[in-house]
Amino acid sequence: MEEKSVGTVVPKDFTFGLTEEDKLLLDCGRKIGPVNIRFETYGKLDETRSNAILILHALSGDAHVAGYLDEEKKKIGWWDSMVGPGKAFDTDKYFIVCSNVIGGCSGSTGPRSFNPDSTNVSKIYNMDFPVITIADMVRAQHRLMKHLGIEKWLSLSGGSMGGMQALEWVVSYPEAVASVIPIATTSCLSPQSISFNWVGRQAIMGDPNWNNGNYDLDKVPETGLAIARMLGHITYLSDKSMDKKFGRELQESESYSFDFKHNFKVESYLKHQGEKFVERFDANSYLYISRAMDYFDLSEKFGGNLSVAFSQVRAPFLIISFSSDWLFPPDESIKIVEALRINSIDVTYCDIKSIYGHDAFLLEVNVLERLISDFLRCRYEEVRKK
Amino acid sequence: MEEKSVGTVVPKDFTFGLTEEDKLLLDCGRKIGPVNIRFETYGKLDETRSNAILILHALSGDAHVAGYLDEEKKKIGWWDSMVGPGKAFDTDKYFIVCSNVIGGCSGSTGPRSFNPDSTNVSKIYNMDFPVITIADMVRAQHRLMKHLGIEKWLSLSGGSMGGMQALEWVVSYPEAVASVIPIATTSCLSPQSISFNWVGRQAIMGDPNWNNGNYDLDKVPETGLAIARMLGHITYLSDKSMDKKFGRELQESESYSFDFKHNFKVESYLKHQGEKFVERFDANSYLYISRAMDYFDLSEKFGGNLSVAFSQVRAPFLIISFSSDWLFPPDESIKIVEALRINSIDVTYCDIKSIYGHDAFLLEVNVLERLISDFLRCRYEEVRKK
Repeated sequence: MEEKSVGTVVPKDFTFGLTEEDKLLLDCGRKIGPVNIRFETYGKLDETRSNAILILHALSGDAHVAGYLDEEKKKIGWWDSMVGPGKAFDTDKYFIVCSNVIGGCSGSTGPRSFNPDSTNVSKIYNMDFPVITIADMVRAQHRLMKHLGIEKWLSLSGGSMGGMQALEWVVSYPEAVASVIPIATTSCLSPQSISFNWVGRQAIMGDPNWNNGNYDLDKVPETGLAIARMLGHITYLSDKSMDKKFGRELQESESYSFDFKHNFKVESYLKHQGEKFVERFDANSYLYISRAMDYFDLSEKFGGNLSVAFSQVRAPFLIISFSSDWLFPPDESIKIVEALRINSIDVTYCDIKSIYGHDAFLLEVNVLERLISDFLRCRYEEVRKK
Repeated sequence: MEEKSVGTVVPKDFTFGLTEEDKLLLDCGRKIGPVNIRFETYGKLDETRSNAILILHALSGDAHVAGYLDEEKKKIGWWDSMVGPGKAFDTDKYFIVCSNVIGGCSGSTGPRSFNPDSTNVSKIYNMDFPVITIADMVRAQHRLMKHLGIEKWLSLSGGSMGGMQALEWVVSYPEAVASVIPIATTSCLSPQSISFNWVGRQAIMGDPNWNNGNYDLDKVPETGLAIARMLGHITYLSDKSMDKKFGRELQESESYSFDFKHNFKVESYLKHQGEKFVERFDANSYLYISRAMDYFDLSEKFGGNLSVAFSQVRAPFLIISFSSDWLFPPDESIKIVEALRINSIDVTYCDIKSIYGHDAFLLEVNVLERLISDFLRCRYEEVRKK
């Protein structure tokens, strides 16, 4: 049976901020422009423009959420299991949009981009790129929304940092959102997560190749970036899924090697993950995006009261967490549910029993599909009745 | 009120393995000698030599468990709250011994020591030091025991890697142990812990100053070692204790700094911990000791069956875990308890409710004191009746 897929996708670009007035004003007070947004779309916008859904990616994700970019089908979308014909985000029914965040390194403006104000020869931002926030990412996406002629998203969804963007969207632009599906996320980064990000960044910035961010592409801080990625990977898995997947098995060996090379299977796995990541991700982008996550605290502008943050919100929510996710544990989702219910907002909350830890949002496809397709169908019917 | 203390302590040295026959045979098959053991003792050995207790230290610990080494009282023992007159390990009643593990960097033979077989100019082991195991550490301690004229320990106790050594002791030398108090430990390192160790070591070995282990003392791999330590620190705390201690508070600032310097209080804390550690600990020792922990699997020599590992054991146990310890969670202690009970061994198990995570074994002094002093009193009475 042929796997259902959106097929080959051609990424698009939208550039704004070419004039001073059109530039993007950021939380830090600086303005940037030009700003490019790399995005992909799947399915068709209906006649009433009411079936558009924005998918938001996590730290290391990109705009390529579904299908493939090449005929060889090497580069499959990061959530292809969830986005396509007949899938949870059904491209036969909905118009799906996914864009690379600003600060990223997969087509949207970030530290590797052209800096018109640079006095350097390279004319590349590197560490002159402003420190951005989740709200800044969302501001840029709002420009894309207007460009696409969409007045209101039928829904917003994403896992991890994608869920943070979804939450920020509905608080910043409540009138532009008909429903929200935050998955495996939090309303505010915990000190433990801030600490993991800190250690990862110290590894990158401590790598001599980092060179204050001014590295050449043939000499990137790959040791530091691989360490940051390997560390991240530990937090994306659960102790139980690691027990199940690796246990204490050795790699190609009957007995301990009595050296410091990768000896356990889990060590080989991490090493491989680190190496793969270095090939596709920019170290400075890692710094900027992880910092944006650190700064995420939805209640901060509302006196530290999360229920006040949601006071202008009317959109119904489907909130999903995973029992073994210790990076953004169920408790974090429950805090959001409680703050929404204080505002009498319609919330469906589901904590999915899973051993896969934080990564479950990429893996627990069957149960996610049932929950999300039902929720979206109801929302779409409501919107069309109006 | 004067704090009860053992006062000023003079560390001692015991050297063995000066002849080929007396060398220490290790699990890897190599022999080392001479081997020095740095140790401290507190209290007096009684006339029947039945009141000796061995305290075993964790990854970054040393022989200096109680009192101070200098009149300025700057260097207080790492478990001074627990070892002293009238304390849990009561030096008025018991003869307490604590030694630095081999592979360490605080007086006992380790990678910084003289290598008699070296062909290098420096004559220092560095990475020519053999990869050691927890059982090798215990073998060296057994030599110290004989040197001290002790036939049987009244008890063995330690937290974390100290608990691993206590477990290894009673399995390797069941006749030499009258009771055991493993705290916040495991019978076998989990793939998650192996992963954290791996990432820490990659940071050290990826630091150009590491220089394949042949660094000068004025140019040590301090960036890598600090990263390993900061990462370790995250695993020693719990998410709840981090929330309570740091939350999202900023360091000397009212608002986000929009840069990559330490901005959150928790970042300053980790930075400080990393810097302090680099001053006192050797990077190669960190590699060797963390590798010894990776290789720890008490059931490995017994067909993977932990209850078989304990089949020769008769000593009663007091096993203690902490509810919020996610590095060596209560489940790991329960596995040990179950394996002991299959052998009808007398086990008292206590899971202490605490928010302090793995570090609780250093912090929950009051409840530890009650449990341990009672347990030791009973064991001492039993031993003296015989």
